[in-house]
Amino acid sequence: MAEVAEKKKSGGLAGVIAGDSSICLCGSEEESLLYRGYPIEDLARFASFEETAWLILRGSLPTEKELSDYRVVLKEKRDLPVNLKAILEQIPKDAGMMDVMRTSVSALGHFEPEIEEKGRFDIADKLVSCIGAPLLYWHTLHTKGKRLDLVTQEKNHSGHLLQLILGHEASEEHQRFLDIALILYAEHEFNASTFTVRTIASTLSDFYSAICGGIGALSGPLHGGANEKAIELILKFQSQQEAEQGVLRMLERKELIMGFGHRVYTTRDPRSDIIKDIARKLAEDAGDLETFEIAERIEEVMRREKKLFPNLDFYSALAFRYLGIPTAMFTPIFVMSRIVGWSAHLLEQRQNNKLIRPLSNYTGPKRETWKPIGKRS
Amino acid sequence: MAEVAEKKKSGGLAGVIAGDSSICLCGSEEESLLYRGYPIEDLARFASFEETAWLILRGSLPTEKELSDYRVVLKEKRDLPVNLKAILEQIPKDAGMMDVMRTSVSALGHFEPEIEEKGRFDIADKLVSCIGAPLLYWHTLHTKGKRLDLVTQEKNHSGHLLQLILGHEASEEHQRFLDIALILYAEHEFNASTFTVRTIASTLSDFYSAICGGIGALSGPLHGGANEKAIELILKFQSQQEAEQGVLRMLERKELIMGFGHRVYTTRDPRSDIIKDIARKLAEDAGDLETFEIAERIEEVMRREKKLFPNLDFYSALAFRYLGIPTAMFTPIFVMSRIVGWSAHLLEQRQNNKLIRPLSNYTGPKRETWKPIGKRS
Ligand SMILES: CC(C)(COP(=O)(O)OP(=O)(O)OC[C@H]1O[C@@H](n2cnc3c(N)ncnc32)[C@H](O)[C@@H]1OP(=O)(O)O)[C@@H](O)C(=O)NCCC(=O)NCCS
Ligand SMILES: CC(C)(COP(=O)(O)OP(=O)(O)OC[C@H]1O[C@@H](n2cnc3c(N)ncnc32)[C@H](O)[C@@H]1OP(=O)(O)O)[C@@H](O)C(=O)NCCC(=O)NCCS
Repeated sequence: MAEVAEKKKSGGLAGVIAGDSSICLCGSEEESLLYRGYPIEDLARFASFEETAWLILRGSLPTEKELSDYRVVLKEKRDLPVNLKAILEQIPKDAGMMDVMRTSVSALGHFEPEIEEKGRFDIADKLVSCIGAPLLYWHTLHTKGKRLDLVTQEKNHSGHLLQLILGHEASEEHQRFLDIALILYAEHEFNASTFTVRTIASTLSDFYSAICGGIGALSGPLHGGANEKAIELILKFQSQQEAEQGVLRMLERKELIMGFGHRVYTTRDPRSDIIKDIARKLAEDAGDLETFEIAERIEEVMRREKKLFPNLDFYSALAFRYLGIPTAMFTPIFVMSRIVGWSAHLLEQRQNNKLIRPLSNYTGPKRETWKPIGKRS
Repeated sequence: MAEVAEKKKSGGLAGVIAGDSSICLCGSEEESLLYRGYPIEDLARFASFEETAWLILRGSLPTEKELSDYRVVLKEKRDLPVNLKAILEQIPKDAGMMDVMRTSVSALGHFEPEIEEKGRFDIADKLVSCIGAPLLYWHTLHTKGKRLDLVTQEKNHSGHLLQLILGHEASEEHQRFLDIALILYAEHEFNASTFTVRTIASTLSDFYSAICGGIGALSGPLHGGANEKAIELILKFQSQQEAEQGVLRMLERKELIMGFGHRVYTTRDPRSDIIKDIARKLAEDAGDLETFEIAERIEEVMRREKKLFPNLDFYSALAFRYLGIPTAMFTPIFVMSRIVGWSAHLLEQRQNNKLIRPLSNYTGPKRETWKPIGKRS
């Protein structure tokens, strides 16, 4: 047993402290989550996404003036360089959405490179404002055959995104629900994608390189990709009973149930309660409590059978669906929010940099004597 | 003193074992370097780059038949999809070369995505063969105004690359020198870019995402970018005496001298002796021993003043220059070789995967009480 625990601990840097950070506290004091000291529950209740982004990036809550100026900055940065649009038009219809995001952040770096004259937050602000735009431009081109106007007059970032995604204005309530989801996804300590961003930044590489790496890491199903898998699972079942039996069968086959479990939280994910309330409200409005109850049944089975709890991705998936967001866009929405946390960590890493370069435990062959090619078999 | 050592150790995962690996042993037994058990000295002497790539990727030296089949596979994969070329034509002339490599690997993923039907080594083989091609296509377009034919009849990978870079066939000796440099750069345990690749792969993300992250990490001056900075330094000086004084001044100002020092090696980098011999030979052939001696003087000063030794990047820079490679292409050449190590680590990570997700040491504020926006200052 001790050996198993030891083995668990030694894999995947579980439990290993990889550096200092003042951005986020995750998993202490009854599984709470703080951004720069502020509990996630207060942020979800009182703050907007823009306010939260400012807090995470700049370190303190904005004043009224700072926030209104910041909103103007974000609004002004919504459009993309025309050559980037030309590149997007060459990307085929069947490309993966996360791959399109990765290519477009990489390509934006050619047109608006990181040069010394830029302010410390310039690229972060640009990406917070526009990181979703290339995907939505490319998607609209292929689904509607038209070149999307990326400059909307929406006041809020969440309203702007919903307008680009849906092609029409969303209700204030839906805008606020997406706003809250973006707050919940904005930052989460040294998760795999953020740690990737920091490792790339630690070589003193540029902003775009680091964010590209973050997008790549987030796209995996053990990380951001989980929300897309979660909705596929929920929608597979027609009734609570089917869900119960289906999940039991999956557990028997030792399959992972996406949207459950966490490396740091052990009993609950504080973000899940918040997004679950939103998912319930949206299900009620849609007159579709059945699907919500199927999801709840899956939660019940996972708790009973595996002592596992839903993480943010499980009920987010349901909420995103009711907001009219296509499934393949769930992980991209995660990017549109997490760009905030990635940027804050990148800037923090640079402030007190040390190259991130661990060691491996060598398990290969001892020193071998050279074998000329004719003598090999 | 103990405290300093402690602090050193806790930063940047220095000295921390992040996982098992059987690919490379680096820094043990008098600072040796083994790929799959074979000493770097033997590989540089007896093997070709293709043979070394096979060894690192497949785990054992190829037979005659395997090697000749592998050469055919690599030759067949030299060209690029036409739509990728169209994307490259949209990238501006002043883009960074490493950024072009990052975008093109990301974009290749749209045209040749990782699908289940592919063999385990398919994408690795494709990238080993063609990862340099997009950059050279783009570069030739901007410098010579022509669309480069990426399919050469060169037998060796190093000859193929030199043909694309120089626009004419290189001598057999030069081909062999590049071949050896590619062998030296091919793999190096859990360095920052390889560890980035593994972290991305650990979320079960795709091949292209992981390699994009590797390119981003490598581009930083503390990692692959060091070879470009090294040549700039060497060429700044007109004489050995100037070099001596210049480096002393830099050290006084606490500037880093690029191409010196290493996280794992403490007294010597075994690759440096090999590439230094090549650099000397090339300098002699070029009738330019003066530049070589300036480099040697820098080495002498660094050893005397800081007990620091040249790493692979220092004399590589000189060798690349004599081979006629433009300075901005030095780090890209590193990519063209290290793609081998990255791919091997990605495949190894997948074989026994565990999400790479460390913790941070929280240094931020305690739980804060919410402040309504009107009450902030
Ligand atoms: C998030 C996650 C990767 C963290 O895992 P970790 O710290 O590496 O721990 P492990 O994967 O080793 O899990 C420990 C045990 O719980 C099981 N487990 C963890 N999450 C599980 C899940 N979602 N479904 C079924 N079993 C699960 C594992 O199979 C393992 O069982 P074992 O001890 O019998 O091998 C993991 O919970 C997971 O894969 N969840 C599903 C993907 C997901 O939702 N990701 C989004 C995270 S926000
Ligand atoms: C490779 C490298 C990042 C490893 O460094 P590390 O393990 O993180 O160790 P540190 O950077 O903390 O270096 C330890 C000390 O040596 C000094 N040092 C290390 N490399 C140095 C160099 N190339 N020039 C001058 N001083 C150097 C550091 O300034 C530091 O001094 P301090 O203790 O007074 O602060 C570092 O040697 C370096 O930056 N080298 C130059 C870049 C380079 O060549 N990279 C290619 C590596 S293959």
